Amino acid sequence: MCQLLGMNCNVPTDICFSFTGFQARGGVTDVHRDGWGIAFFEEKGVRLFLDPQPSCVSQIAELVRAYPIRSLNVIAHIRKATQGAVSLENTHPFMRELWGRYWIFAHNGNLENFAPPLSGAFMPVGTTDSERAFCWVLDRLRARFGQCPPPPDELFDTLHDLSTTLSQHGACNYLLSNGERLFAHCSTALAYIVRCAPFAAAHLKDQDVTVDFNDLTTPNDRVAVIATQPLTDNEAWHVMPPGTLWCFEEGQPVRQQTTGVAGQVIQS
Amino acid sequence: MCQLLGMNCNVPTDICFSFTGFQARGGVTDVHRDGWGIAFFEEKGVRLFLDPQPSCVSQIAELVRAYPIRSLNVIAHIRKATQGAVSLENTHPFMRELWGRYWIFAHNGNLENFAPPLSGAFMPVGTTDSERAFCWVLDRLRARFGQCPPPPDELFDTLHDLSTTLSQHGACNYLLSNGERLFAHCSTALAYIVRCAPFAAAHLKDQDVTVDFNDLTTPNDRVAVIATQPLTDNEAWHVMPPGTLWCFEEGQPVRQQTTGVAGQVIQS
Repeated sequence: MCQLLGMNCNVPTDICFSFTGFQARGGVTDVHRDGWGIAFFEEKGVRLFLDPQPSCVSQIAELVRAYPIRSLNVIAHIRKATQGAVSLENTHPFMRELWGRYWIFAHNGNLENFAPPLSGAFMPVGTTDSERAFCWVLDRLRARFGQCPPPPDELFDTLHDLSTTLSQHGACNYLLSNGERLFAHCSTALAYIVRCAPFAAAHLKDQDVTVDFNDLTTPNDRVAVIATQPLTDNEAWHVMPPGTLWCFEEGQPVRQQTTGVAGQVIQS
Repeated sequence: MCQLLGMNCNVPTDICFSFTGFQARGGVTDVHRDGWGIAFFEEKGVRLFLDPQPSCVSQIAELVRAYPIRSLNVIAHIRKATQGAVSLENTHPFMRELWGRYWIFAHNGNLENFAPPLSGAFMPVGTTDSERAFCWVLDRLRARFGQCPPPPDELFDTLHDLSTTLSQHGACNYLLSNGERLFAHCSTALAYIVRCAPFAAAHLKDQDVTVDFNDLTTPNDRVAVIATQPLTDNEAWHVMPPGTLWCFEEGQPVRQQTTGVAGQVIQS
């Protein structure tokens, strides 16, 4: 199974600390060696770094770990391939444009027998079930709302319906963002933490690295970090119940709803 | 005015040498300090590096210069802003998906009074005339050919018509690729060179760097490099006539046609 990492903040924040632990899972402390990627929103723009190399040996991952890019919404993924060869076009996250905004999507799970008709507005470039699911979600959003984006609650409700359908085909943990909000669907495994004042020190599980967030933050900062497995061993992460869709905004969850059908647990 | 760099090859080739000279124009030997970007096709996948920082001081440009990424089609751009603020979403090249392929576009020039109706299938995220032109080109391609890509000659003919229209609004030098071919439209300034056996040494204009391509190539390799201004001072570059559209395939030009209306020369 792949691993997901997301961040949603109320002020632009770098993800270097969390990425350091996450990167190690791409071949050092875990088995996800089939590529990795990370997308940073900066205003409406996106920096997307993709590499079919394992993140633990990737020169590009090394740059991302060491180069503080400040962002309100970040989505990262390390891959253990289930469907689709190890190649650049099958590397998450995927990017498309809808309603004059870039949308970023990364998926962890395995969707079986998922071959829905697509209008042609969003077509997969690679051969993963994940990219097909992303194209289908955007296709459905555009079919439902036409040329104008809906209000946030209507968007959430529609994503809820679409996530329930996706979950009927298997495990479908995903992170999705258009740079304004970050949506997280927990099908089998996702956890999150909200860091805010009073800040404390955090210690990574996957590397012996500690950061004292007091040194890096102001009292009004708020940062939500979402990951397949908690990244630190001295903080209280919230494990999301299987079968829930979450919306994060300004560094905290603002809405959560059961998607009804929990995806099946798959073997990695 | 911005500067363009493209490469089209018959075997995957790295662009480190050409990028070294090009990078220097982003603030050292020339004035293009308003961001830079580069896109590498690898099979159907794309690595897209964007940075609103000047390329001469960008850590990401430093990585690209030193890290050989082998590709059949590359498009790079350094920006001197005319329309649109200096920001990530206004940084070239731009990427969209059409017909299950990524398309990459970078533009040098200034299109005035260009605000065509768009269907909504491809919408600009930023505020440049360049991204608007790219969205319009893809919109027209989809309107004309529907859900299936046309044969290469029909695609070229349609791009020829669209380029003629674009040129009526001002200078429109552009590079466009879907990973199979590279299209280059010269409105005011573009030059190219085809390197093939017998290979020789080349010396950059913008840095005192020489490469002997004999050390790096096999006899069957063929590489076309396209740039706003020639990058080397000891090779014979072909200056494209203003008002011509070119198609490069397997490292050489395979078709060229006059687009009728040459764009006006603009001041940088």
